[in-house]
Amino acid sequence: MRGPIVPSTCDLRVFQQQIASTYGDKDQRRGIAGTFMYFMEEVGELAEALREPERHDLAGEFADCQAWLVSLAHLAGVDLAEAVNTKYPGRCLRCQATPCTCLSKP
Amino acid sequence: MRGPIVPSTCDLRVFQQQIASTYGDKDQRRGIAGTFMYFMEEVGELAEALREPERHDLAGEFADCQAWLVSLAHLAGVDLAEAVNTKYPGRCLRCQATPCTCLSKP
Repeated sequence: MRGPIVPSTCDLRVFQQQIASTYGDKDQRRGIAGTFMYFMEEVGELAEALREPERHDLAGEFADCQAWLVSLAHLAGVDLAEAVNTKYPGRCLRCQATPCTCLSKP
Repeated sequence: MRGPIVPSTCDLRVFQQQIASTYGDKDQRRGIAGTFMYFMEEVGELAEALREPERHDLAGEFADCQAWLVSLAHLAGVDLAEAVNTKYPGRCLRCQATPCTCLSKP
């Protein structure tokens, strides 16, 4: 008998600590510019997977972009969870509405 | 008297729902290609902020990249939290170690 399906939770703060523990030393030795290049490599793979999802691991490419973004944040001394909570508190900060009613970024 | 400083938590699953509620309709009308372009615009701004952090809002640029990545994931039908948990379970999947001992991605 199958148990209940529990939606995945993923705490960005915990994930940043995890990525830092696993890859932080390598990231530090490589530096920001080199790490940014790896991030861009994954973004390129994401573009390819978005274009042909049936021939790629789309979820995996998204996960890779997320991981490298977190690596970069840690290297740059940014707490990504805090940065997100500050700028994205739950409603559009420009028009104060959910859903957003801004004319910008159509 | 100040209260304790509580580190920010940010659940990617909750954030994806929040972004979908706030911007999902606009993202849907714009489509994947147009949304990817906005994501790239933010990645460019992130590069600039990494280069000159003293003259930019580095944390804000990271937050924007995160938000647009989540928008893209939602549009593409990907649960980003689940994708991350699947591919990044807490140790390097290649060498099984934390910290990673792989020779790849120096």
